[in-house]
Amino acid sequence: MEKALIRAHFGWQPDATFSAALQDGLPEGVSVTTGDTPHPDTEILVWGRPSLEQMRRLPSLRAVVVPFTGVPQETIEAVRALEGVTLHNLHHNAPATAEMAIALLFATAKRLIPSDAEFRQSGWKAREQPPAMLLFGKKAVVLGHGEIGRRIADCCRGIGMSVIAVSRTGGEGALPANRLHEALPEADSLLLALPATAETEGLIGEEEFRILKPSCILINVGRGATVDEEALFAALSEGRIGGAGLDVWYRYPRHGADRPSRFPFERLGNVVLSPHRGADVDENESLRAQALNELLLAAAQGGPIPNEVDVAAGY
Amino acid sequence: MEKALIRAHFGWQPDATFSAALQDGLPEGVSVTTGDTPHPDTEILVWGRPSLEQMRRLPSLRAVVVPFTGVPQETIEAVRALEGVTLHNLHHNAPATAEMAIALLFATAKRLIPSDAEFRQSGWKAREQPPAMLLFGKKAVVLGHGEIGRRIADCCRGIGMSVIAVSRTGGEGALPANRLHEALPEADSLLLALPATAETEGLIGEEEFRILKPSCILINVGRGATVDEEALFAALSEGRIGGAGLDVWYRYPRHGADRPSRFPFERLGNVVLSPHRGADVDENESLRAQALNELLLAAAQGGPIPNEVDVAAGY
Repeated sequence: MEKALIRAHFGWQPDATFSAALQDGLPEGVSVTTGDTPHPDTEILVWGRPSLEQMRRLPSLRAVVVPFTGVPQETIEAVRALEGVTLHNLHHNAPATAEMAIALLFATAKRLIPSDAEFRQSGWKAREQPPAMLLFGKKAVVLGHGEIGRRIADCCRGIGMSVIAVSRTGGEGALPANRLHEALPEADSLLLALPATAETEGLIGEEEFRILKPSCILINVGRGATVDEEALFAALSEGRIGGAGLDVWYRYPRHGADRPSRFPFERLGNVVLSPHRGADVDENESLRAQALNELLLAAAQGGPIPNEVDVAAGY
Repeated sequence: MEKALIRAHFGWQPDATFSAALQDGLPEGVSVTTGDTPHPDTEILVWGRPSLEQMRRLPSLRAVVVPFTGVPQETIEAVRALEGVTLHNLHHNAPATAEMAIALLFATAKRLIPSDAEFRQSGWKAREQPPAMLLFGKKAVVLGHGEIGRRIADCCRGIGMSVIAVSRTGGEGALPANRLHEALPEADSLLLALPATAETEGLIGEEEFRILKPSCILINVGRGATVDEEALFAALSEGRIGGAGLDVWYRYPRHGADRPSRFPFERLGNVVLSPHRGADVDENESLRAQALNELLLAAAQGGPIPNEVDVAAGY
């Protein structure tokens, strides 16, 4: 029996690492093309931000795979407008993104950035600093219970923190989002790993900052928009929370922005700023190829394609 | 039956937090004095660096307690010269010091310091950086298997690294120090939590840097002298290891030094510098008082005083 050939198209020119790792594991029965213009017979389109117009030109299209965890809202809306096309993502970047959250938590709690800068400049005088926060025994509230949020929660437990997880619907050990306000006052650190949806936009705003502890450290590795930009800047610059570590922002180069926010976060001393580098680790491309191979293998075997995104719920 | 009164003297003026926590839990039968001049009837002297002369003036002295983990070599030698006096330390700062090691590991692996600085200065251009190291699944070699080393190993496992522990004599899951060179080539991160002794001085030197991976991240929260100063600076400035996070140093203010080393570590970009702040957390004084209370309680009950330091082995 001859296997059906699946045509997958990748909307970028993969680098050498990705290509090597892909070729190593590409399942039989999958044919791959790459580049800016999808092959007209494409069934599985692997692309970060494909346009609706582009997808409408592909009569055989049955699945769109966003090759990372955080699916853009425009892509969800575009796929929603198509008949018989499912949307998928990849979770290969979950450990790296969770690690960025933990890295930012430690750097903020231990004040590593001002401490390093002052030690370099003034030597031992730098020792006269306010004490750091001990994380052992403290409480982490983790918003988002997907691959990244769960991994963050595991790491927090692994370093001796207790964890309250909060997800949209609750369950699997997580509180439902409608009980968020019960969890917030307990948070020594509030860690966000949420997608940007209509429900999550501005989830943490003026009211939420009022009920957080003044020592609370906010970490965001999900999407900037889940924390109200103005309220966050105000809470930090007025010292109403202990600090923040931010890897996700409000204005991106694709919007023509040089700066990540309309507020000058770069002038604040109690913030660790990171230019959306959560997934940017040495193994990223080989992990991505490996995750894509697993997905394509499932498709080639005729089973359901994994990691389907709920386009109605929006994530 | 009346309990014997134990006279303890603390060689510093405790702050309000320490005093409050101490008074809360001070065991019956213990009388405490404080300040620069020990009470002549002192039996238990709690002091970071007491002099031999000072101790010889205390005829009832039976125990010296160094109120932190890293007992100074001078103190060990001074107590060794006395008859019938035991030496003890406290481990209340072990979780905080282990956290400093993990904080430095994450900050170095994720290049948080140059990334934050460049993002503040240049906005989104900062995104063009070499990728970070993924720690998940990597190997940590932890030197030192005392309270701090064990806690570092727990945290490394907790974030998904595998661990090789190395201790002087081995056992309890640790390799003995004479097999150190088997472990070093495997280290994605080498974390040191060693006391300064004749055996540990310069333990990591030119030869060891040659067998480490060029990507290896070295973290030191034990004592500076355990890593050869010149070899470390050379390995870092020539890029022969991936980076370092250093909380312990070679020259201290008590030696009249402004700078922590005779080499300009402050000019290196692949290092996170911390001014020996491992134990400097908000709860430190109350944890210290709590640990002292436990020790004094054991003494008041007539049992052996806990945390005895092996003055022959030197730690």
